[in-house]
Amino acid sequence: MREFLTLLSPQAALERWLNALSDSEPDGEDIPSIEALGRVTIAGIRAPEPMPSFPRSTVDGYAVRAADTFGASDSLPAYLRLVGEVGMGKAPDFILQPGQAALIYTGGMLPEGADAVVMLEHTQVTLPGEIEVLRAVAVGENVLKVGEDVQVGDEVIPAGVRLRPAEIGGLMGLGITKLRVAKRPRVGIISSGDEVIPPDQPLGMAQVRDINSYSIGALVDMLGGIPQRYGIVPDREEALREVLTRALSESQMVIISAGSSISTRDLTARVMDEMGPPGVLVHGINIRPGKPTILAVCNGKPVLGLSGNPVSALVVASLFLPAVLDKLSGVKLQRPRARVQARLTINLPSQAGREDYVPVRLMETQEGYLAEPIFYKSNLIFSLVRADGVLRIPADATGLGLGATAEVWLL
Amino acid sequence: MREFLTLLSPQAALERWLNALSDSEPDGEDIPSIEALGRVTIAGIRAPEPMPSFPRSTVDGYAVRAADTFGASDSLPAYLRLVGEVGMGKAPDFILQPGQAALIYTGGMLPEGADAVVMLEHTQVTLPGEIEVLRAVAVGENVLKVGEDVQVGDEVIPAGVRLRPAEIGGLMGLGITKLRVAKRPRVGIISSGDEVIPPDQPLGMAQVRDINSYSIGALVDMLGGIPQRYGIVPDREEALREVLTRALSESQMVIISAGSSISTRDLTARVMDEMGPPGVLVHGINIRPGKPTILAVCNGKPVLGLSGNPVSALVVASLFLPAVLDKLSGVKLQRPRARVQARLTINLPSQAGREDYVPVRLMETQEGYLAEPIFYKSNLIFSLVRADGVLRIPADATGLGLGATAEVWLL
Repeated sequence: MREFLTLLSPQAALERWLNALSDSEPDGEDIPSIEALGRVTIAGIRAPEPMPSFPRSTVDGYAVRAADTFGASDSLPAYLRLVGEVGMGKAPDFILQPGQAALIYTGGMLPEGADAVVMLEHTQVTLPGEIEVLRAVAVGENVLKVGEDVQVGDEVIPAGVRLRPAEIGGLMGLGITKLRVAKRPRVGIISSGDEVIPPDQPLGMAQVRDINSYSIGALVDMLGGIPQRYGIVPDREEALREVLTRALSESQMVIISAGSSISTRDLTARVMDEMGPPGVLVHGINIRPGKPTILAVCNGKPVLGLSGNPVSALVVASLFLPAVLDKLSGVKLQRPRARVQARLTINLPSQAGREDYVPVRLMETQEGYLAEPIFYKSNLIFSLVRADGVLRIPADATGLGLGATAEVWLL
Repeated sequence: MREFLTLLSPQAALERWLNALSDSEPDGEDIPSIEALGRVTIAGIRAPEPMPSFPRSTVDGYAVRAADTFGASDSLPAYLRLVGEVGMGKAPDFILQPGQAALIYTGGMLPEGADAVVMLEHTQVTLPGEIEVLRAVAVGENVLKVGEDVQVGDEVIPAGVRLRPAEIGGLMGLGITKLRVAKRPRVGIISSGDEVIPPDQPLGMAQVRDINSYSIGALVDMLGGIPQRYGIVPDREEALREVLTRALSESQMVIISAGSSISTRDLTARVMDEMGPPGVLVHGINIRPGKPTILAVCNGKPVLGLSGNPVSALVVASLFLPAVLDKLSGVKLQRPRARVQARLTINLPSQAGREDYVPVRLMETQEGYLAEPIFYKSNLIFSLVRADGVLRIPADATGLGLGATAEVWLL
């Protein structure tokens, strides 16, 4: 189970992985809309009523019949009889007749008979009970029609949308106070390595504390999954096999942060490959950091093998997890990911044919962001702590020059 | 309390608001590090131990004394005696003498006496108990020194940092399993308007359901605050005064989504101004949507008055809340905000001297994102539901042309 000789690009590797996943839809659960931020719709949501549900003024002014204002100007005003005022939240108890106007506020309901609103600043009150209209309005001007935002039965939110504040507001506006969403996918996380101990234990010589279970767990949480930690497994085939079997049966996905040595990585890949078809799909990716990444699918469930190196593990997880967690959550509408464009403060060499991700600190200037690379040796988690994001050097470049613009993915 | 005649730019308005806030630090609370994602450090965190805590190999290979390899090459290898293997997680029980080598794996502890590691692929085993080194290594090559990531006492995370997965991993790696963070700021949210009803009630004629309490509440939640809803207040001065007084006493910040009519907005500003010095600082901003925004500070606490228009309210809140919630949370290290560059699919006119934010849908292409504006009348929340973000037209432009590149803030 050695690494494959021809390494795939990250994009090709991700595509192969996603395509091998089961197409089954996630299970649903009913929750209050008020708790639905970040959750994913499981069915299209249709409007049970129109919005707005009555003709509304969009300005402060006078409800009129547009025809009564035709030709009106500063020098030749139209004179209308003021017959009332529309109270907020109440349907007007009168019908507007030709030659009449009624005071109305933003959001107020147009009286029957009216078909437009003249803005306050285009009117003048000269005699009590009469207004002068100084500008003509067209039919429908300054008015929201019934159903102008949504009509009854419109699909206002399709299936597979991750809900943001705008959607929460829209649901409430339509009186939809609960809805069915996809269950959050449960992601099993396993750390392996004879040298790894839990963070709360005293550190012996030659030991390191488990970082990846927690950094990757936090990322899973951030991306809408439920991290389920399975602790630390020694570098023995049976031990790994037993925990992986259990994690796979209890989760929608499993992530293994393997030891960093070649033999440990091979052991991990071998065990993953046994867990059900198609097994390991990608072993080794043309990327730095993250070359030893393993992508597998076992009986329809994704399994991700990360290097034990915490920098490599977190960079690779940041690249691969958003798409796979979206898929497991039933997301059909992919939103753009947070990134910024930045100019490099130095020359940055790289190897052509391989995608490099370099941790950078960003500095905001008048002309946009500057990206200052953070140099680090393998394995230093605090090089990522010092970074705002990772700068991508495309595979077709042999590096980027001082002042070159590149994309930075925010961490 | 009419809108000010000279409108400030959004940047100047925000600056004036932030500068008037109390400088007091937020209260702290102790929490497990595992729950600290998105929370803000309240004091600098120092390393209680070095990282790594022992000299570690970064490759699979042989631990050696570098001097023994000087001059080694394919044609003239250095011959070293193989004296053992370093087990993972165990301190080697031997001292490496001149002329000796020991097998070591990535992450393994260097034996005493060794000062470098030769990669496996630069060696050859010809006789049992002997290796040939085909390339020289320098002192320290392929080795992480003790404290190379962090030294004991280093400030690894300063005060005022919002914790991401990298920081969570770093804390765990240092054995810091609990820490003191700022309490999440409580944000009181008030909706006002005689026409507004709660989402779960049947809609009468001329009534609308409360959207803003929920869209803005979800945004507050997303930004690390605790939204505390105070319900819907009728458009009467005493009612608003009473609720605002209570909300201010129970929260670190208050947001009022006022009615949309001029008289209602004036009433809101008047009541805000009474609540303690300095009162209303900004009334009206040079921005669309969002011109009628009110920024106040009452006894050191920020109060934000938003228009009742749900699109305007959410766009303005998205622009102003991140900075003020960061300040209330004690954030000192501002991270870049999620945004993308996109090219316009059409000409987009705007009024010079005013900043415009236009809801857009983004389409990913080979050449980057295209932004397609979503046209809407005032007040239509579902125009934001259809959008990926809002595209900014700077104040000094009279619009942007087809193909022009602009910044899109993700919603």
